[in-house]
Amino acid sequence: MAISFSLKARDGLARRGLLVTPHGEVETPAFMPVGTLGTVKGLLPSQVWQAGAGIVLGNTYHLHLRPGDDRVARLGGLHRFMNWPGAILTDSGGYQVFSLAETRSITDKGVVFRSHVDGRMIDLTPEKAIAIQENLGSDIAMVLDECPPAGCSPVDLERAVARTVAWAARCRNAGTRADQSQFAIVQGGLDIGMRRQCAADLVAMNFPGYALGGFSVGEKPEAMAEALPACAAALPENKPRYLMGVGRPEDILMAIAAGIDMFDCVLPTRNGRNAQAFTRQGELRLRNAAFRDDPAPLDSDCDCPACVGFSRAYLHHLFACREMLGPILLSAHNIRFYQRMVAGARDAIATGSFVAWSRDWLVGPTRSL
Amino acid sequence: MAISFSLKARDGLARRGLLVTPHGEVETPAFMPVGTLGTVKGLLPSQVWQAGAGIVLGNTYHLHLRPGDDRVARLGGLHRFMNWPGAILTDSGGYQVFSLAETRSITDKGVVFRSHVDGRMIDLTPEKAIAIQENLGSDIAMVLDECPPAGCSPVDLERAVARTVAWAARCRNAGTRADQSQFAIVQGGLDIGMRRQCAADLVAMNFPGYALGGFSVGEKPEAMAEALPACAAALPENKPRYLMGVGRPEDILMAIAAGIDMFDCVLPTRNGRNAQAFTRQGELRLRNAAFRDDPAPLDSDCDCPACVGFSRAYLHHLFACREMLGPILLSAHNIRFYQRMVAGARDAIATGSFVAWSRDWLVGPTRSL
Repeated sequence: MAISFSLKARDGLARRGLLVTPHGEVETPAFMPVGTLGTVKGLLPSQVWQAGAGIVLGNTYHLHLRPGDDRVARLGGLHRFMNWPGAILTDSGGYQVFSLAETRSITDKGVVFRSHVDGRMIDLTPEKAIAIQENLGSDIAMVLDECPPAGCSPVDLERAVARTVAWAARCRNAGTRADQSQFAIVQGGLDIGMRRQCAADLVAMNFPGYALGGFSVGEKPEAMAEALPACAAALPENKPRYLMGVGRPEDILMAIAAGIDMFDCVLPTRNGRNAQAFTRQGELRLRNAAFRDDPAPLDSDCDCPACVGFSRAYLHHLFACREMLGPILLSAHNIRFYQRMVAGARDAIATGSFVAWSRDWLVGPTRSL
Repeated sequence: MAISFSLKARDGLARRGLLVTPHGEVETPAFMPVGTLGTVKGLLPSQVWQAGAGIVLGNTYHLHLRPGDDRVARLGGLHRFMNWPGAILTDSGGYQVFSLAETRSITDKGVVFRSHVDGRMIDLTPEKAIAIQENLGSDIAMVLDECPPAGCSPVDLERAVARTVAWAARCRNAGTRADQSQFAIVQGGLDIGMRRQCAADLVAMNFPGYALGGFSVGEKPEAMAEALPACAAALPENKPRYLMGVGRPEDILMAIAAGIDMFDCVLPTRNGRNAQAFTRQGELRLRNAAFRDDPAPLDSDCDCPACVGFSRAYLHHLFACREMLGPILLSAHNIRFYQRMVAGARDAIATGSFVAWSRDWLVGPTRSL
């Protein structure tokens, strides 16, 4: 089976929906924790699941290099390899090639890059990006795209968009697995006309879902906020919309208001490992000596393993002593925070109260809505 | 309430018993995972509990330095601080002072040492060791002892034993908490006569429990095996017997056969963090490339989170990529392995089959019985 998607409620541009995948149902708006190398860093799959996540993201680039997608296939596919009971979306590897690897050349054919792990040269074409993702066996595969940097010239932007559209068509043709659905990626930077044209070209190919790439790549948050409603509106109503790599809690609420359904971001786990905890009142930095004697839980609203049973003083102590349990607990908390946020958004959309709810939900200093 | 201890079964010198503490019942022989700084490294308390541990060890020296035992007391004591539902035994700090700190002087009064964390000078007397442990609020406190190195001169050994006995008496007098029970520590190296005299002097003070210190400090395993039965026999039948800091699975089985009831060791977590997994067939080193494509579970006998759902290939991948989940899963496995071992020993003692059971249980290359 492929995925299916249905809208359950609307509230302004915001949407509540249900994504049905070969590995379970996922309510949208949904946040996907990032499991780069086949593990959401620091957490057991059961902990990610209990936090409320029904879908996680795997990175094609990283998994191709280690342990190798062919090996993952021999071991039964990524779900079984990482023991994840829910759905998996894999990116195409393109973004990591451009950001991590020493890229040797980009041509219309594809990308040649040097592995950041062992230095060997690797070809990545649209066809190969799909072949790798078919080996991984994700429920949703992303097409290979070219993600131009923020502020690139109109000529470079136009060439990247043209390549992205051409590569999407090649990915569509390359797909062979009936149990894997491809999402196309709309590029075009902050040029709304270019975004609309890219979206129209991709929509003509009738993908099961669409992503917005090239946001959160260095532009100002306000610029993204301004561009998103038009970009979302250029996508079909009846297909899921995924904003790649975004973002901070306030960015996600803003994007939900603009009609986006799916998100992924490394912030919950990366910041958690770095002693930063998301709360509705803003981020707490647990290394701060102010917490040394604080008997209060991290967040009295929260039902995560860190907040149920531990004090801020204890969490501070764990980070002061570089104990693994600190990163573990804060990663669990932050993942749960993001899941509670999208669950709240879904409920608010269902009752037509999303704007008021989102205005109230983030009350602290990280709020920029 | 203080602790109480009752024997439930005997099998040769081996004993099965029940230790009742203010924080729950613990069946013996018992293995205590080490939670040096108020956390069994890499694991949630719930995971340690689910592995079958009913009692963990906390380190007085480490907790005095960070976060400070006064702070732990203000935050409700160590059980609440680390959110551990079971019993806690704290050591006296003596062993760490001799092994970790730059020790400045040992006199009959106590020890003066330089903190390995921040360099400040700290006094540790028998009275202070008890005061710190009363702040921590452990169920079982260890007296301050002097642990002489393996192979020290008879004169040094005798002086350390005399000091250990004198300090034990001072600890006994210093205790004020009715909910904390002190265990005395028998020293005397490999000199059985010295051990017997030390034990007799301590038994005369009627402690609730007795430990054997100064083993596993550099002597040959055979030397410990030879000395243990006589050392255990010098202790009262009706009190728990604790062999400090031991050890490898085969050492623990040997010591159970000699009549020891309680154990602690960092091996399960330390080796787990280092990619070494205990199994009945010996230790597996998961970094070994031989496991790269191995779809089998770590240990098909085991019901721990690592063995249920993950392959050796996945565990190898986690360590190859330095993912936190590798140390987490192997620590969970090794703690469970030790708990399964002592649970098996208890059952075997109850049915009078300990010798045959322990001969069969460890079948692999780590077995030295």
